[in-house]
Amino acid sequence: MSDQETTVAALRALVESFVDQREWHQFHSPKNLSMSLAVEAAELMEHFQWITGEASREIGSDSRKLEAVSDELADVMCYALALANELSIDVDTAMRVKMKKNEAKYPIR
Amino acid sequence: MSDQETTVAALRALVESFVDQREWHQFHSPKNLSMSLAVEAAELMEHFQWITGEASREIGSDSRKLEAVSDELADVMCYALALANELSIDVDTAMRVKMKKNEAKYPIR
Amino acid sequence: MSDQETTVAALRALVESFVDQREWHQFHSPKNLSMSLAVEAAELMEHFQWITGEASREIGSDSRKLEAVSDELADVMCYALALANELSIDVDTAMRVKMKKNEAKYPIR
Amino acid sequence: MSDQETTVAALRALVESFVDQREWHQFHSPKNLSMSLAVEAAELMEHFQWITGEASREIGSDSRKLEAVSDELADVMCYALALANELSIDVDTAMRVKMKKNEAKYPIR
Repeated sequence: MSDQETTVAALRALVESFVDQREWHQFHSPKNLSMSLAVEAAELMEHFQWITGEASREIGSDSRKLEAVSDELADVMCYALALANELSIDVDTAMRVKMKKNEAKYPIR
Repeated sequence: MSDQETTVAALRALVESFVDQREWHQFHSPKNLSMSLAVEAAELMEHFQWITGEASREIGSDSRKLEAVSDELADVMCYALALANELSIDVDTAMRVKMKKNEAKYPIR
Repeated sequence: MSDQETTVAALRALVESFVDQREWHQFHSPKNLSMSLAVEAAELMEHFQWITGEASREIGSDSRKLEAVSDELADVMCYALALANELSIDVDTAMRVKMKKNEAKYPIR
Repeated sequence: MSDQETTVAALRALVESFVDQREWHQFHSPKNLSMSLAVEAAELMEHFQWITGEASREIGSDSRKLEAVSDELADVMCYALALANELSIDVDTAMRVKMKKNEAKYPIR
């Protein structure tokens, strides 16, 4: 599979199944998930902490670093989708609604 | 549309188009995007800062709060996908690879 | 007063008094304070999000921006000291203990 | 020494000396320091991620956990003071100015 074919729902189901099998819903209050998301975002950021913006664009050429960054991005996605699951938020709808607001706020010149 | 039908690639294209039309790629170094992601994760967290875990599970019953949380979650998703776009990371693959590691780390009892 | 004369205890007392007068200890669990600290750190970071490292060194020459950054840094300090208050952590001791570990980890070449 | 006697300036000098001896000023742009501060705040938060607010109040009774939390709080303080050093912000003044604004925003009832 790949992003070309995978639906958001398929990824949500992947996360839901993982959480469900471990009986982790009891810990997955939206409050706790929001903390986890922030923690994972910080771990992702850590990879770019001491390098310049320009150097960060070249990180893809180092396969080990790219894998580490991919892993952290995956963690961010997992918690974002876990939160969407807990609150029954449709991500596609949420993104399109927010994008409309962003378009109004930042019109194309 | 909804998460049932939307592919990850469709959401990525939505973000890419928004960024491209505003000529924002120059600002979207992975370093800067990782900061934006952390900033948005914190804004999401802010909604749950002073309430208990239990109370956070009820946030869906307040439609205004749910909309505010949905907006912040959408921002998190936008920056996560913008980062995937900049680094050509396939989110589906990254999540499945990371999930395998998580399964090994947290086996089902 | 200034940093030359003010003790850490004086700043801790300032924060304690503010919290106490508003009867906010009930909300100031270490968990909640750690979230607040992360939220304020993100708000501080927001000022540097889209500028280069070099440009960020010049922020002091813009008095309005410097005041905004000072305000966010003050918020970070307030929550860090509020957490120290709640957990009765002596900041001076904690910093000296941690600095010893850092010196071992990063020896001077 | 302890917070009762240590001045903020003494702690700032401790950080300055550590940074100076390792020639790290070149990496310590305010942008990078704001990222480090957010990363350390997230590491601190990680200790409280899956426990309730009430349980987090009891963390002081576990000396190993308290030491881990103290270490992370020390890291937060180090980067906050490193940023104050780089931007020549007087922390005492910044906190008193911000506290005045907070008092106006949140009057005592």
